[in-house]
Amino acid sequence: MFDRLPARVRVYEVGPRDGLQNEAVFVPTEDKVRLVEYLHAAGLRDIEITSFVNPRWIPPLADAEHVAAALRDAPLADCRLTALVPNERGLERALENGVREVAVFMSASETHNQRNINKSIADTWPAFAPVFARCIAEGVRIRGYVSAVWGCPYEGEVAASQVTDIAQRLLDLGVYEVSLGDTIGVGTPRQTARLLEALLERIPANALAMHMHDTRGTALANCLVGLELGITTFDASIGGMGGCPYAAGASGNLATEDLVFMLHGMGVETGIDLGHLARAGAFAQACLGRELPGRALKALCAAG
Amino acid sequence: MFDRLPARVRVYEVGPRDGLQNEAVFVPTEDKVRLVEYLHAAGLRDIEITSFVNPRWIPPLADAEHVAAALRDAPLADCRLTALVPNERGLERALENGVREVAVFMSASETHNQRNINKSIADTWPAFAPVFARCIAEGVRIRGYVSAVWGCPYEGEVAASQVTDIAQRLLDLGVYEVSLGDTIGVGTPRQTARLLEALLERIPANALAMHMHDTRGTALANCLVGLELGITTFDASIGGMGGCPYAAGASGNLATEDLVFMLHGMGVETGIDLGHLARAGAFAQACLGRELPGRALKALCAAG
Repeated sequence: MFDRLPARVRVYEVGPRDGLQNEAVFVPTEDKVRLVEYLHAAGLRDIEITSFVNPRWIPPLADAEHVAAALRDAPLADCRLTALVPNERGLERALENGVREVAVFMSASETHNQRNINKSIADTWPAFAPVFARCIAEGVRIRGYVSAVWGCPYEGEVAASQVTDIAQRLLDLGVYEVSLGDTIGVGTPRQTARLLEALLERIPANALAMHMHDTRGTALANCLVGLELGITTFDASIGGMGGCPYAAGASGNLATEDLVFMLHGMGVETGIDLGHLARAGAFAQACLGRELPGRALKALCAAG
Repeated sequence: MFDRLPARVRVYEVGPRDGLQNEAVFVPTEDKVRLVEYLHAAGLRDIEITSFVNPRWIPPLADAEHVAAALRDAPLADCRLTALVPNERGLERALENGVREVAVFMSASETHNQRNINKSIADTWPAFAPVFARCIAEGVRIRGYVSAVWGCPYEGEVAASQVTDIAQRLLDLGVYEVSLGDTIGVGTPRQTARLLEALLERIPANALAMHMHDTRGTALANCLVGLELGITTFDASIGGMGGCPYAAGASGNLATEDLVFMLHGMGVETGIDLGHLARAGAFAQACLGRELPGRALKALCAAG
């Protein structure tokens, strides 16, 4: 077993965006910036910093312009900072504040897409067109999120062929990578193997990332399957910041420290220092005024 | 992947013993009995109910006699109730109260064994002799725990050959099964594969169980490796009850609901009903007056 593991994995940090957008507390802009600096100091080189959605929808990220502008001037060497943009208006705001890499999102489930971005999947493509055209013209890299891949809160299981079609179309349109999301955290390893095997028939592993939620404790087991099948980019959130939007009080994102602990234990390099990462996690806990669900963070804090 | 998974797995519930012994609260005897009844109602058929150690060492389990005596008279069909016994005196107390299956424990690490049971590993064997002789004479089944298998809080990594020698000797002495414990929760999947592959060269898979701690979030990923290598018995604790004795505030035991959720999602039968299991978990939380760390439990409670 494990004779073909990758030597190195890229950890894509989503805490400041996907984590904070699901937290009840508004973290002041300067603390958001400091959190990103802590994450960079721990060795993370891909950090999603905020979301340029309408501030009325997601009040915790209402200061997106200020966060992006502050980080444009911060000395974060070799670090790619990404911001989520839902539409042209969001992209405009992002570009005005120095963002050079954006993420777009849609759902693999028709009902989830409708409820989440108020459009059918078919109508989502034309809405992407001007965003993609502008990004390509300006040399801005685009990442694509596909959510509800392992299951939809309204429709249940989603067909692998549907996921593959959407991922392929996003890549054809120009995203450099598709991040597959287990939005409600229902994925289990055999399903993950089947899903990835179907996707990998048409899409190369290095164009895919896994964005697993730990709502039922299976995130790392699913990542392990992805690792064995050649996936080398994994999304995670510092401390496991961000709950599950469909189950109040439940855990959401996979904790970055748990992922990094497992990878390092398996001899897979990440470029991340776990001790520094715990400091970032402790800072995130202090910002939110609550204990975060990440397990390794608790163990690292207990160890002092 | 996963074309040789077992059709069915046995889940061995350790919450009432290994969970409660690491909790600060003393749960009244009648609630302990009710918890076992809830677990049985959920479909668990192997439950470790208490420990007959000296009550001064583990005050939360000071009522071992009362728990065992109450459960002797409870109508729990087809259920094996086990109690931990550290020595002859403990065995005597267990037998007097109707216990018909016991567990003994030792460590794979010399220092951990010394600190935990105050004897060298060499001196532990003669101390076991009268316990084993009495059990065999009375037809009482014995389970053997080996702790610190994935790492020792004092010595670090433990040699696979040392673990194998100890497990083999326990089986030779008459235990029906050896449960391998990741006491401090440091195991990662590649290590698990190497360790189990070494053990399985000399010991059949059906004589081994895995007892993983989720201190750093890797318990299920490690169980997945065991499952792929033919292990069919896994220990778990309802709600993830019981902290890590070597890291205050950190998580300890793997949560039963997380394990069962993953197994069912993979099409592996357990005979357990997840809805009923959540009720047992909610009751455990009420007994302890704190939120337990199990992730699926939070999701199940949130779903109502």
